[in-house]
Amino acid sequence: MAVIGAGIMGADHARLLASEVPGVKLEVICDADETRARAVADLHGANHVSTDPLSVIADKAIDAVLIAAPDRFHAELTLAAIAAGKPVLCEKPLSPEKKECLAILAAEEKAGKRLVQVGFMRRFDPSYVEVKSILNAGTLGRAMMFHCIHRNVSAPSNFEGHMAISSSAPHEFDIARWMLDADFTSVTVYRPGGVKAVPGAALFMVLETAAGQLVNIEVNNNAAYGYDVRGEVVGEKGTASLRSPINAETNAALQNLTSYAADWRPRFEEAYRRQNIAWVQSISSGKPAGANAWDGYWATLTAEAGIQALSSKQTVAISAVPKPKFYAA
Amino acid sequence: MAVIGAGIMGADHARLLASEVPGVKLEVICDADETRARAVADLHGANHVSTDPLSVIADKAIDAVLIAAPDRFHAELTLAAIAAGKPVLCEKPLSPEKKECLAILAAEEKAGKRLVQVGFMRRFDPSYVEVKSILNAGTLGRAMMFHCIHRNVSAPSNFEGHMAISSSAPHEFDIARWMLDADFTSVTVYRPGGVKAVPGAALFMVLETAAGQLVNIEVNNNAAYGYDVRGEVVGEKGTASLRSPINAETNAALQNLTSYAADWRPRFEEAYRRQNIAWVQSISSGKPAGANAWDGYWATLTAEAGIQALSSKQTVAISAVPKPKFYAA
Amino acid sequence: MAVIGAGIMGADHARLLASEVPGVKLEVICDADETRARAVADLHGANHVSTDPLSVIADKAIDAVLIAAPDRFHAELTLAAIAAGKPVLCEKPLSPEKKECLAILAAEEKAGKRLVQVGFMRRFDPSYVEVKSILNAGTLGRAMMFHCIHRNVSAPSNFEGHMAISSSAPHEFDIARWMLDADFTSVTVYRPGGVKAVPGAALFMVLETAAGQLVNIEVNNNAAYGYDVRGEVVGEKGTASLRSPINAETNAALQNLTSYAADWRPRFEEAYRRQNIAWVQSISSGKPAGANAWDGYWATLTAEAGIQALSSKQTVAISAVPKPKFYAA
Amino acid sequence: MAVIGAGIMGADHARLLASEVPGVKLEVICDADETRARAVADLHGANHVSTDPLSVIADKAIDAVLIAAPDRFHAELTLAAIAAGKPVLCEKPLSPEKKECLAILAAEEKAGKRLVQVGFMRRFDPSYVEVKSILNAGTLGRAMMFHCIHRNVSAPSNFEGHMAISSSAPHEFDIARWMLDADFTSVTVYRPGGVKAVPGAALFMVLETAAGQLVNIEVNNNAAYGYDVRGEVVGEKGTASLRSPINAETNAALQNLTSYAADWRPRFEEAYRRQNIAWVQSISSGKPAGANAWDGYWATLTAEAGIQALSSKQTVAISAVPKPKFYAA
Repeated sequence: MAVIGAGIMGADHARLLASEVPGVKLEVICDADETRARAVADLHGANHVSTDPLSVIADKAIDAVLIAAPDRFHAELTLAAIAAGKPVLCEKPLSPEKKECLAILAAEEKAGKRLVQVGFMRRFDPSYVEVKSILNAGTLGRAMMFHCIHRNVSAPSNFEGHMAISSSAPHEFDIARWMLDADFTSVTVYRPGGVKAVPGAALFMVLETAAGQLVNIEVNNNAAYGYDVRGEVVGEKGTASLRSPINAETNAALQNLTSYAADWRPRFEEAYRRQNIAWVQSISSGKPAGANAWDGYWATLTAEAGIQALSSKQTVAISAVPKPKFYAA
Repeated sequence: MAVIGAGIMGADHARLLASEVPGVKLEVICDADETRARAVADLHGANHVSTDPLSVIADKAIDAVLIAAPDRFHAELTLAAIAAGKPVLCEKPLSPEKKECLAILAAEEKAGKRLVQVGFMRRFDPSYVEVKSILNAGTLGRAMMFHCIHRNVSAPSNFEGHMAISSSAPHEFDIARWMLDADFTSVTVYRPGGVKAVPGAALFMVLETAAGQLVNIEVNNNAAYGYDVRGEVVGEKGTASLRSPINAETNAALQNLTSYAADWRPRFEEAYRRQNIAWVQSISSGKPAGANAWDGYWATLTAEAGIQALSSKQTVAISAVPKPKFYAA
Repeated sequence: MAVIGAGIMGADHARLLASEVPGVKLEVICDADETRARAVADLHGANHVSTDPLSVIADKAIDAVLIAAPDRFHAELTLAAIAAGKPVLCEKPLSPEKKECLAILAAEEKAGKRLVQVGFMRRFDPSYVEVKSILNAGTLGRAMMFHCIHRNVSAPSNFEGHMAISSSAPHEFDIARWMLDADFTSVTVYRPGGVKAVPGAALFMVLETAAGQLVNIEVNNNAAYGYDVRGEVVGEKGTASLRSPINAETNAALQNLTSYAADWRPRFEEAYRRQNIAWVQSISSGKPAGANAWDGYWATLTAEAGIQALSSKQTVAISAVPKPKFYAA
Repeated sequence: MAVIGAGIMGADHARLLASEVPGVKLEVICDADETRARAVADLHGANHVSTDPLSVIADKAIDAVLIAAPDRFHAELTLAAIAAGKPVLCEKPLSPEKKECLAILAAEEKAGKRLVQVGFMRRFDPSYVEVKSILNAGTLGRAMMFHCIHRNVSAPSNFEGHMAISSSAPHEFDIARWMLDADFTSVTVYRPGGVKAVPGAALFMVLETAAGQLVNIEVNNNAAYGYDVRGEVVGEKGTASLRSPINAETNAALQNLTSYAADWRPRFEEAYRRQNIAWVQSISSGKPAGANAWDGYWATLTAEAGIQALSSKQTVAISAVPKPKFYAA
């Protein structure tokens, strides 16, 4: 197996594949920065390093590829993997460009085999899974709204432009589609005034689904206080909410307190682990798991509409191409 | 003191004034239904009953008036109290009609004395008070958003038309203005589809303030599961949330559970008590307390814009008359 | 009405009677320190001050007496009130001496009228009341254990000797008897070693009831972190626990936090208010409320056994005099 | 690797080793009941089954042994593994008999190599680990008490005699020794009366450590409402408590509720996984992890004293043999 990209995400995937996922032989770490690739390879026992992702993908010794390169390379690398007939787990977004996503859909359909999984790991998070099972059990009646909150301590230094919508919000878009089993029809974006409109400044989005449900999302990449993701499904008969993992509480100095993590890794450690295990098992079993390329397309489609809604201060309609039968069921 | 209106709210105010508020002599209970007035008077030791509110207000034996009659009579009765020079605590809304609110503002200013308190009791609720004190202490930095949730078990049988906006939401409008010390400039209203649009069906509102803050409100009068009011102020450095009062938790049958009340009374019992104590003290001290007629006007103004926004499916601007100096600080 | 004792407890009772309890005319504040009495009287609008409690009790203008003097005077003053035929609310303990409690029982029975209420205010706390109602409803099955925790920030400066057992623990003894409807038969006391055995150092007590239930109590007057009282009833089918009142939570600086009060007043504000309202109503109605002199005797009896158990490092049996019929039902 | 015992624990260990722990080849499942062994082997891809544990241990194809056979065979099998020079992870208890534990200590010391890990998996539970790190950081000051609660839904059908003390409580004994870095000096056991003294009926234990700390344990194998394990360390400056993992909460039917599991597996899934990963890594690294044979001896020693304390209704002193240097640091 090869990991392409040795940044934060790639390094973490290498660690998971090496130490937490049975049945994986970590063969190559590939990064434009060979030193960085070497460091990750040494840490997690990978045999080789490379600076050339396309040759890695083509390498016969490699059975499957995990792509954690910068977003703008995702499509090219995924297409290469499809061309090589190799299963690929591509970090989100599938591509920041809708048309690149469509190219991947076409390529995969042409290949005639489902090879692409997109790294929307929340679908494996025990909290989201349990809320969905409560909803599916009928306890809440029909879902009417889904309130979502996505807060980071601060936007990473590489944040620019509309990455709050193109990079952070897609997690929310995908999990809401999955939770509600429904596609979006429109999006409106509000920006709180009076604070600097830096990349990562807070936004509030209202989306409607084809079934009329509302998905209300706060995306706040500079929330300062901690990494915090929340969600509540509001149904006709009740509601269900995520609970974040908390291990301990402390009483001291007139306070009861619990801790937030500084980033997403502790919060979604188990989701990533289960996602990667599911991916590896799907390679053996031939049964796809998790988010597919169609889901990846939808997340990007929604993000593009969101960016347009922010700029225009208007509600923007969301309209997808017809769903290929290839992705049915 | 007289209580006008012996329905649920009036009966509860009579109970509070008789049993929980020192320094009050409950003299008259007035209701169009004399039997109902009698029942409340007997229960709480009021000396007299009446079916004629205007003569009650004019009665020299009455020093102050609490109005809990149906909404459409609020303005007329409040104006009568002002004319009689008597302090009045008027249940919300001050009036369902903006122009009636303006008439009250004019009358009170002409009387030259602050006589009107509006029953936005949440301003006295320990949870809202504590969140505001946290915000004012600077812990959160500047407020950017206020997420509000208002859920009833089911809409009362007299619910009709747009009462979710005209009758329930004003509590949220007022407390958000108070919390953020800011007036609204616009409102947008979303209605989840796919469920019957009965009176009290769920709505989601996005308001903007003059300082650019967002106030996001779910008003859900048929939430089914319990009476539940929540709020979270999102600041640049952190957030603060209401906690509802919970007295006990039970472990049984593979569950940990706490209870919701079926209506607002247990949740806001302490807020009503403190409000009424503050009102009685304000009569002695001559220093007004709580929400004034200007605040009452703003709540109705906002509700009218909200109803228009729901009908038009457009964002509606909110614009008030200039604030009279009479109501400045 | 007269309040005897103008220390922390007396001042708080004066405030409650003056501002939160309808139907009370606060007539006299009595304290050995006239300046202190004067300050409390001025603050809460009492008409007179006195330094002579016995003449206050005898004063015909006084209908009822609230005793918040130092513990060692409780019995003498309560006996005087009984002799004067006046209702008395005596702060706990009824007396630190078992034999003085017995003298009060004898005097009250001789007077032929229930005049004494003991200030075990927890019986009016909404949390304890709700846990008891859950237990009584049968949800938990038969109660087997009651885990209790009593923590203060630090022992008050006047703490000495065994006041953790004679002054703090009686609240736990009384509420456990009330919760379980059972009397104690034995007590064992453990003291954690390795920390200075100052007055107020932590203790752990195990009591058994006549029905074989265990009551396990941590009394920790130097808990440092906050005022914190907890309780969990363990039944055959489930458990029920107290929840302390919390108004708000804050997210800031990688933490979620709620606050503890520095002393008991915020935690039991509502319990004191309800207790005092119930006392005033019991004077009108002639129906006693709350803990009676027999309950006061039991708390002191248990504390004496506890002190003996601590000294002897042995389990000490607890044996009461036969319960007078006067106190039945 | 071989798993000996294919009951609930053995099956779960086989699943973990096959699916969640990298680097393991699951070779043999051994059970007296060959059908049961076969079912587990088939489910988790083990190559062979056996009904003869001693030959499995001796088998050269086996590098390490996980013992999950009935308690009474633990010592014999562990001694066999030591004799074969193979690393062994033995489910708790190391043996129900103190003298068998001493035999294992002697054998391991004689072998001159640390080969035995005891399955006290809580040492790897994220909650216990975090509480210990809070304590070690000095936030709480010196630990004075540790309150522990251990509740099962109902005692398993094979529960008999004093298994509440010999089988359940050892988890608490071990984790308390680990948490406080202290050995016990005495134990007292209380049994709530009025309920049938069936195996698994609730007990309450008070232990003292050499440093004078108190460890108070409720062991309640018939708690009915759910599997629930709690712990709170009480220090001079504050306290820290475990939080059990909760993934979601539901609002419905006037209740807010979260779920309990019916047994220990969901609660300690992560602890078992980490324990087994640590064990496998310790085999590679040669650095022992987790609880060793000396810790296993201590748990059994404490249980024996506890059983004696229950029978005698006396406090029983606990005294270990001198700690062999072999087990130092």
